[in-house]
Amino acid sequence: MTQDNQPHAATTLSARRLKWHAQDEAIILMRTDCPVCRSEGLTSRARVLISCDGRDVVATLHQIDDDWLALSEAGLSEAAWSRLGAEPGADLKVSHAPTLRSLSDVRQRMTGKRLPSDGFDRIVTDIAAGLYSDIHLAAFISACSTLSLDIDEITSLTGAMVNVGEQLDWNTDMVIDKHCVGGLPGNRTTPIVVAILASLGLTVPKTSSRAITSPAGTADTMETLTQVDLSLPDIRRVVETEGGCLAWGGAVQLSPADDILIRIERALDIDAEGQLIASVLSKKIAAGASHVVLDLPVGPTAKLRSAAGARALAQHMTIVARGFGLKTHCVFSDGLQPVGRGIGPALEAWDVLRVLQRSKSAPPDLRERALTLAGAALELAGRAKPDTGAAMAQDALDNGSAWSKFQAICAAQGGLREPPRAAQTAPVAAIRSGVLKAIDNRKLSRLAKLAGAPERPAAGLTVHKRLGEQITIGEPLLTIHAEASGEIDYAMSYAHANAGLFTIEG
Amino acid sequence: MTQDNQPHAATTLSARRLKWHAQDEAIILMRTDCPVCRSEGLTSRARVLISCDGRDVVATLHQIDDDWLALSEAGLSEAAWSRLGAEPGADLKVSHAPTLRSLSDVRQRMTGKRLPSDGFDRIVTDIAAGLYSDIHLAAFISACSTLSLDIDEITSLTGAMVNVGEQLDWNTDMVIDKHCVGGLPGNRTTPIVVAILASLGLTVPKTSSRAITSPAGTADTMETLTQVDLSLPDIRRVVETEGGCLAWGGAVQLSPADDILIRIERALDIDAEGQLIASVLSKKIAAGASHVVLDLPVGPTAKLRSAAGARALAQHMTIVARGFGLKTHCVFSDGLQPVGRGIGPALEAWDVLRVLQRSKSAPPDLRERALTLAGAALELAGRAKPDTGAAMAQDALDNGSAWSKFQAICAAQGGLREPPRAAQTAPVAAIRSGVLKAIDNRKLSRLAKLAGAPERPAAGLTVHKRLGEQITIGEPLLTIHAEASGEIDYAMSYAHANAGLFTIEG
Repeated sequence: MTQDNQPHAATTLSARRLKWHAQDEAIILMRTDCPVCRSEGLTSRARVLISCDGRDVVATLHQIDDDWLALSEAGLSEAAWSRLGAEPGADLKVSHAPTLRSLSDVRQRMTGKRLPSDGFDRIVTDIAAGLYSDIHLAAFISACSTLSLDIDEITSLTGAMVNVGEQLDWNTDMVIDKHCVGGLPGNRTTPIVVAILASLGLTVPKTSSRAITSPAGTADTMETLTQVDLSLPDIRRVVETEGGCLAWGGAVQLSPADDILIRIERALDIDAEGQLIASVLSKKIAAGASHVVLDLPVGPTAKLRSAAGARALAQHMTIVARGFGLKTHCVFSDGLQPVGRGIGPALEAWDVLRVLQRSKSAPPDLRERALTLAGAALELAGRAKPDTGAAMAQDALDNGSAWSKFQAICAAQGGLREPPRAAQTAPVAAIRSGVLKAIDNRKLSRLAKLAGAPERPAAGLTVHKRLGEQITIGEPLLTIHAEASGEIDYAMSYAHANAGLFTIEG
Repeated sequence: MTQDNQPHAATTLSARRLKWHAQDEAIILMRTDCPVCRSEGLTSRARVLISCDGRDVVATLHQIDDDWLALSEAGLSEAAWSRLGAEPGADLKVSHAPTLRSLSDVRQRMTGKRLPSDGFDRIVTDIAAGLYSDIHLAAFISACSTLSLDIDEITSLTGAMVNVGEQLDWNTDMVIDKHCVGGLPGNRTTPIVVAILASLGLTVPKTSSRAITSPAGTADTMETLTQVDLSLPDIRRVVETEGGCLAWGGAVQLSPADDILIRIERALDIDAEGQLIASVLSKKIAAGASHVVLDLPVGPTAKLRSAAGARALAQHMTIVARGFGLKTHCVFSDGLQPVGRGIGPALEAWDVLRVLQRSKSAPPDLRERALTLAGAALELAGRAKPDTGAAMAQDALDNGSAWSKFQAICAAQGGLREPPRAAQTAPVAAIRSGVLKAIDNRKLSRLAKLAGAPERPAAGLTVHKRLGEQITIGEPLLTIHAEASGEIDYAMSYAHANAGLFTIEG
């Protein structure tokens, strides 16, 4: 018997690239009155299967009643276009999308039943293949949050996410990784930690993400210093010669379902513990890590708002990681205020350089955090005795070997370059005197983004004051950096409208 | 302090209607490089607030990099266009959408916590105002399904759904309604039940939906017989003169959030009990009903698959309804096979007419079901003693008063007309002899839709055989009705590929 919902072959349409961005959603636009919509009985928002030259993509159908799209054409969103690998004018076949068996698993979870591991395998396979609509993804995420994933389920989800992507193998039992759960602007310890660990002979094949909602990701910052868009063979070559790399993870398919799920989690502004654990660990396991140090900043405007929540997360993360032979160490850090002075790709790169170069103007908090994390990694890896890791890391930093290693890694990735500086700057002054009692990390991140970060690498903020400092009215609290005066004005109006950015009392 | 995410007024763009159908999703298309995207820092799939001449609509942003949209233009999906009530070229202001407080309630429910009634009020108010994206809607629906709504929550949700729409009042304590939970093709009892009850002097202001996934809704069928697109004053006039009406509910804003939620539930193919109850009851309460008879067909290919599930649904529905002073009576009916002979708007209308006209060719099962339901309504309303309602209903049908009342209602709605007949028909013959053991209702519905129902009112099926009948190979099991030979072929190829449509054994 043929498949229920594919009664016969579809007619052909001509592919048209619309340069249409719907973030990562694959959408096809067809005339309501085109022969395929009529003969297939396709209606708006139907899920359709697009076939082109042996490649299949499932997309959401939008329809139009207007002549700017011909009856014989089908317009594609960028996600559909790139997944199909189509050429303009290529023949597309469009038919009803097949029913996904894994949606029965999602519906099962939506009735409050826990899923066995093959259920997660089916779901994650279909997600990674781009077969889920945003509605399906949101329903799955919500189902896994409303009845929170138990340890078995988190383990199943993590394993499924690892299995659908590439998996790196480094021919060594000791591969170090480092991850911060995020939420703290300026917390750019990774380049420093990688340089220290690699300088001490450890293998640290670090792949990082670009910013999605923050003003900078590690990949954005590193891109102002060197090339980060490395292929898998390039990553191998750099790691084999230098022991570490600082690459963008996007060019490598490590846990690709994670990237798809994260997009929806951000739209929902949720980050359920089980999914967070699977997200972090699947990337690390796929990258071939054996030991991971996790930075968990805790503070009222950080991602982790309570110490108890952070401890529970650490405990569950450790249990799940152990199931995959991955050893973890969690560092609970202060999440009350931003780290370093710069916020934004290039401004954070300058902070990193100052620490590595042992400059007098290096931000001491960034340096201390990097040493703590590098020390924890050295102890976790058995390279330093308990409570001696930070000192060993400090030696590597202070004797210049970390800076040498950083330069060597950048040279291997394509050459070290100087980060750009913004064309325009403007100070934001205190509107009263007193003691600085609180800084809102979320509002600070938003301000940096309004100034143009991370799209404009030189844009962002430098923060001049730290908690507990005495402030005099009129003194600059921060400086806005931007490419154009319009962006300065825009950020400035936000800064002035948001007194809660800095709380000054007494 | 100004709102966190609306730092300043937006620049203006010129409205362009793209005749772009994304079902009910409000989408705005802007150039990635337009001044508003740049100055507001808007990225693809951001939620934005569109303001036009005093009206505000929240929409999802899509972006393009192509000259067919000017830098000064913004293209709107049909949902955005109609909600804004814009004119071509109107000035649009576009800025970041405000943060919705109700999304905190959704996130709360997504952590497994039950919601108080003001949480549902906030959520439903924002849903009805069109402020939720499909992702938000799916997450909410999934959260209410994964941890199923308890009776208090169903009551809160129902009340919130009633409150955001119009509410009708009929100046009488006895207003009868009738509802079928669906899933059984051809089960078109409503026009007959309304005619019988109105002919006996009851008030039956019936509003019905059009088909969404089925081959015909009551409104589609009635539209082949008379005008159904009635305004609220028209509905009042018809009900005041004739005691009943058979109108389309879409022109009246009864429980408008329900229509928005149903679209996502269909995409997910779920119909969680709590949401089903809130959906049905909110429509009835908003329509001013005091007494409702519910038809619950049970069968392996109907919506309700088990008798136990149907009983639990009936019990919960009754408890929630009672909280709103609404009296219910549930009729569990046979959901094993389609009802009547026709499937599709006009073909079902012919069946209805034959029953009302007491034709010898009237399908007896449709007649019996209508009498059972009308009888239950008469007993529930206290107009008939227990076990005498069906006989009273039969009198009204057999003495011609129901048919007279039906004609009067249609005349008041704009005149009775003859349903159309399809241009083409073709029989589907049995491929073996034996006894008809099973009919797949879902496949039958799909076949009728492939033939063109409900968009083409005359299209659909006539089913010639019923369960238990002896079938001879080559005998016609059903006839396909369509407007064009292509559609006949299309439906025929599906019928031939799906032996499971009819199960013939022995």
